[in-house]
Amino acid sequence: MPSRYLNFRCSLPWLLLLLQTLFLLRSFFGFPGAGDIYSPSNFYPEFQDVNHMVIFGFGFFLMVLRRYGFSSTGFTFLLIVLGVQCSVLVEDCLVFLGEQQNEVGMESLAKAVVSMTAVVISTGAVLGKANPVQLIVMTLVELIFFYVSRCINRTFLQVPEHLSLMHVHLFGAYFGLAVTSRFPEPPPGLDKSRSTPKSELFSMLGTVFVWVFWPSFNSILADSKRKAVLNTYLALAVSAVAAFMLSALTSKDGKFRMTHIHSAVLAGGVAVSYTAHSIQHPWIAMILGLLGTVITILGSHCLQRCFNPALKLQDTSGVHFTFGLPAVLGAVAAVVLCVVEEGINIQWNDLSSLGYLVFVDVGAFCQTICTALITGLITGLILNIKLLKAVHVSKYFDDQFYWEFPHLSVGF
Amino acid sequence: MPSRYLNFRCSLPWLLLLLQTLFLLRSFFGFPGAGDIYSPSNFYPEFQDVNHMVIFGFGFFLMVLRRYGFSSTGFTFLLIVLGVQCSVLVEDCLVFLGEQQNEVGMESLAKAVVSMTAVVISTGAVLGKANPVQLIVMTLVELIFFYVSRCINRTFLQVPEHLSLMHVHLFGAYFGLAVTSRFPEPPPGLDKSRSTPKSELFSMLGTVFVWVFWPSFNSILADSKRKAVLNTYLALAVSAVAAFMLSALTSKDGKFRMTHIHSAVLAGGVAVSYTAHSIQHPWIAMILGLLGTVITILGSHCLQRCFNPALKLQDTSGVHFTFGLPAVLGAVAAVVLCVVEEGINIQWNDLSSLGYLVFVDVGAFCQTICTALITGLITGLILNIKLLKAVHVSKYFDDQFYWEFPHLSVGF
Amino acid sequence: MPSRYLNFRCSLPWLLLLLQTLFLLRSFFGFPGAGDIYSPSNFYPEFQDVNHMVIFGFGFFLMVLRRYGFSSTGFTFLLIVLGVQCSVLVEDCLVFLGEQQNEVGMESLAKAVVSMTAVVISTGAVLGKANPVQLIVMTLVELIFFYVSRCINRTFLQVPEHLSLMHVHLFGAYFGLAVTSRFPEPPPGLDKSRSTPKSELFSMLGTVFVWVFWPSFNSILADSKRKAVLNTYLALAVSAVAAFMLSALTSKDGKFRMTHIHSAVLAGGVAVSYTAHSIQHPWIAMILGLLGTVITILGSHCLQRCFNPALKLQDTSGVHFTFGLPAVLGAVAAVVLCVVEEGINIQWNDLSSLGYLVFVDVGAFCQTICTALITGLITGLILNIKLLKAVHVSKYFDDQFYWEFPHLSVGF
Repeated sequence: MPSRYLNFRCSLPWLLLLLQTLFLLRSFFGFPGAGDIYSPSNFYPEFQDVNHMVIFGFGFFLMVLRRYGFSSTGFTFLLIVLGVQCSVLVEDCLVFLGEQQNEVGMESLAKAVVSMTAVVISTGAVLGKANPVQLIVMTLVELIFFYVSRCINRTFLQVPEHLSLMHVHLFGAYFGLAVTSRFPEPPPGLDKSRSTPKSELFSMLGTVFVWVFWPSFNSILADSKRKAVLNTYLALAVSAVAAFMLSALTSKDGKFRMTHIHSAVLAGGVAVSYTAHSIQHPWIAMILGLLGTVITILGSHCLQRCFNPALKLQDTSGVHFTFGLPAVLGAVAAVVLCVVEEGINIQWNDLSSLGYLVFVDVGAFCQTICTALITGLITGLILNIKLLKAVHVSKYFDDQFYWEFPHLSVGF
Repeated sequence: MPSRYLNFRCSLPWLLLLLQTLFLLRSFFGFPGAGDIYSPSNFYPEFQDVNHMVIFGFGFFLMVLRRYGFSSTGFTFLLIVLGVQCSVLVEDCLVFLGEQQNEVGMESLAKAVVSMTAVVISTGAVLGKANPVQLIVMTLVELIFFYVSRCINRTFLQVPEHLSLMHVHLFGAYFGLAVTSRFPEPPPGLDKSRSTPKSELFSMLGTVFVWVFWPSFNSILADSKRKAVLNTYLALAVSAVAAFMLSALTSKDGKFRMTHIHSAVLAGGVAVSYTAHSIQHPWIAMILGLLGTVITILGSHCLQRCFNPALKLQDTSGVHFTFGLPAVLGAVAAVVLCVVEEGINIQWNDLSSLGYLVFVDVGAFCQTICTALITGLITGLILNIKLLKAVHVSKYFDDQFYWEFPHLSVGF
Repeated sequence: MPSRYLNFRCSLPWLLLLLQTLFLLRSFFGFPGAGDIYSPSNFYPEFQDVNHMVIFGFGFFLMVLRRYGFSSTGFTFLLIVLGVQCSVLVEDCLVFLGEQQNEVGMESLAKAVVSMTAVVISTGAVLGKANPVQLIVMTLVELIFFYVSRCINRTFLQVPEHLSLMHVHLFGAYFGLAVTSRFPEPPPGLDKSRSTPKSELFSMLGTVFVWVFWPSFNSILADSKRKAVLNTYLALAVSAVAAFMLSALTSKDGKFRMTHIHSAVLAGGVAVSYTAHSIQHPWIAMILGLLGTVITILGSHCLQRCFNPALKLQDTSGVHFTFGLPAVLGAVAAVVLCVVEEGINIQWNDLSSLGYLVFVDVGAFCQTICTALITGLITGLILNIKLLKAVHVSKYFDDQFYWEFPHLSVGF
């Protein structure tokens, strides 16, 4: 144990140094000329909102474990600042390979932050089980695979750029799920995986933050921003009401359960992410928000009782039902809405073109899920090789394994 | 006890479902065509500020009780998302009755969020005493009555639209006060109604949030936004300084008291809410901020020692002196300033028109307070009928009555 | 002890009243006419960001001590609202003396908030040791001296207005350091000066807030805002990665240390503050961010082991290495970059003009540091005269000395 312990510690700083040097070199050689970088579009307020939401909101949103507060916020922060740089680098390489025209400045950073959301969601699935070296490797691998998946969607399946980015929830959740399936299960009696009222309060703080900024997230790259904002807000509002309703209905004694609220209030935002910019009637967004919450809360019961134990999965912060299932619902809704709209346009005459449309749309979503699952499994296997010094199960969910505590009372 | 206990639990989800179905139906039938909904005005940043302030800021601002953290943030959140939809519905019905032209999109939502502030303030008065069903009924009733009061002000007393919305503090505080007077008093030795340093720290977090966003709140519907922002900021700044000064002066040993700071730093913002857009000289706003704090801190001592015990009121988070008294001061100041300005304009010649002006202005404020008190009393009586299963006094101020605690250590 | 204790309490409210009356009088007489105050430029969003960052972010950033949470946020809040008014007053007096043209409205407030950052940084150095009266006196004196230092820079050393404001970090850190050197050291065994995991978590919350808003801070007065934002963001991102890297490298067992993260993630923002608007290539900003973190973390070890004990300094929240050293690095970088750019422009021909440039630039930074140190020492001496009732060392770092705790369990 002590040798592995020391080894993991030794490798981390050098890995960070290596990556940072790489990013520096790339920005030295690869960045376009100064005149181009600082593009004229004033994109800062939107970027600021999304950046704030991802770094602050998700950092505290993930603070659900009783002894893992420092790591939840700290590692999320580290992964995002690292991943944003890495994401810009990956885009750059693709530009070098001639696949797309160059985009620069704030907008490129904003896309990088949105891409990082996939990683943050995946992190939620392995929360407390992966050490920082594993998390960093996962970040790099996931960003590359997400980029590849987006390229396939864009090139072969005609998904527009801004929609291809909205696959973050789908990709992040299933990638994380596949990765976590390769980690050994914690012993059943480990009480460190529980939450406390205090950790849930901090998590509530993060959740409210994420909720408030979600309309900015869904509209950041949309063409018709106002529509995206309004639809997202309505979906989120219905979602929040439904979360309280279903939490009281499904739990013992009709009490509310905080974990339900955390995951279900966001379901509406995830469910409309593909369609927020194109929904013409607010009631559709509201219905989607409602269905998103229903699927999340029912999913949380079914998955935790049947699916996860059967597959020996342990999805620490429940990303499968928080982000995965509503994103699947959103995908189905996107296909249905697209077909209905197109069908009305062509007055249901040219059914073969409609069939092609469905095929392409469904194909894009299936491709994302499949790529996420397969590459997630591969990544999970890579992460558990000896070189990366996986954490022993007895050290799971514990800040003290990663952080110095020079305090008298460590019982946070 | 168990039967009532179960009954309240049973009715809540169905109430939520009923309301949500109503909102959905209304948005299906009642919403104007898609072209109109997504209005061209870019109102998002202002809306975002106010939304953030009300949901996040007030949610944590109300977290003053030691065992009521989950409910403070959770229920505030639920009420706001429910109330915003309800408020849009109420406005819609009035439009249907032909009373005003239709307004759509972000601006309509922004008004709804501002209206909800009245409910949030009233919630503060019955914090920990009303169960969620009672709170929801109160929200619906209060929004309708506030809307009616605004209509009267607008139609008969010539109050402009944006000023009629600024009556939220006055209406919310006195409505809440009247409602709470109908609730049975908690037993005197109940230590759950106390705060802890931690809950006060979270409350401070919320207070600072509300403080920072207050200029956005006061300027959201004003014509001259910049003036409103600047005047509000100056009033708030003076208010905060005066809060520390008076807290040290009035408390034992000259120590600061956190509850003073919580309520008094916001007094300036409340006091200038009617006049922020029209004050010509910054020193007037500053004086108003100072007076607002004086009235709040003196009020908090007088009310808690004399007024509340005499009337057997228990105003849990002190909305009477935090929002009610500064709003009354602001109303008086608005009348005085209006008279002085008008008097200078007409060179004090046409005194009868001046008298009419005073009469109308004073009438508007009195009408708001009277409507709030009377409808609040009625609402308080309604809330305590058997159907709504009022909480027993021994269960007051307790998260465990509403939330599942699957934790080892429940001593939050 | 009791007499001094009562005396300090007695003088505080009157000091606040005196100051507030002064500000009111000045706004009554000194403010320009109403037409000028409410300037047409829409500066509110930027101002809002910086205001939020300074009041909320720094308030919680300083919450590192286990029993000093109320005072950290409360006093920071008080000092800022007081200091902003004072800063506007100081600018006003200088305008009266004819030194610069009048600036009004939001922009004037924004500059005041930025100036207050110097005071907040200095407060960090004497955190828990100075009583409110001392802090207020320090605020007033520091604002005046900072203003004088800026005037010298602007008038004699040709530093542009917006750059002269960016000297806040340098001035604040060295002023605070000089002040704290005049305070008696706390007894070595005082465990109240330690942090707890909870206080560090709140401090992390504040740090993330400050981090997210830092690009707004660096760009608020810059000419080319977009460049400033992008360069600052890149510097901050590299800085955060490097902070984790170096924290693991330098601490025992390769664990992370939270205090390293707190101070080092911000180093990049401080290091590029002078040059963010002018750096032409992103890699330069990134290198500066990296160097900023290196100097902060190495500095934190060297200073705490050698420098501080030798000089008998106690820099409570480490402002010397958090803000002082990166600001020195930024100053050196600004000179080097300026020389290189200018040298390329004139093709290294006119070396004497280059020498003059270096002389003036270095002069500006040295002037700031010297003024800060000398005036800081003087202020430190003033603060410890008997009139201001310095706190006894046994009462250091304790909320209970300043705040009422009507709670059962005071063990926050």
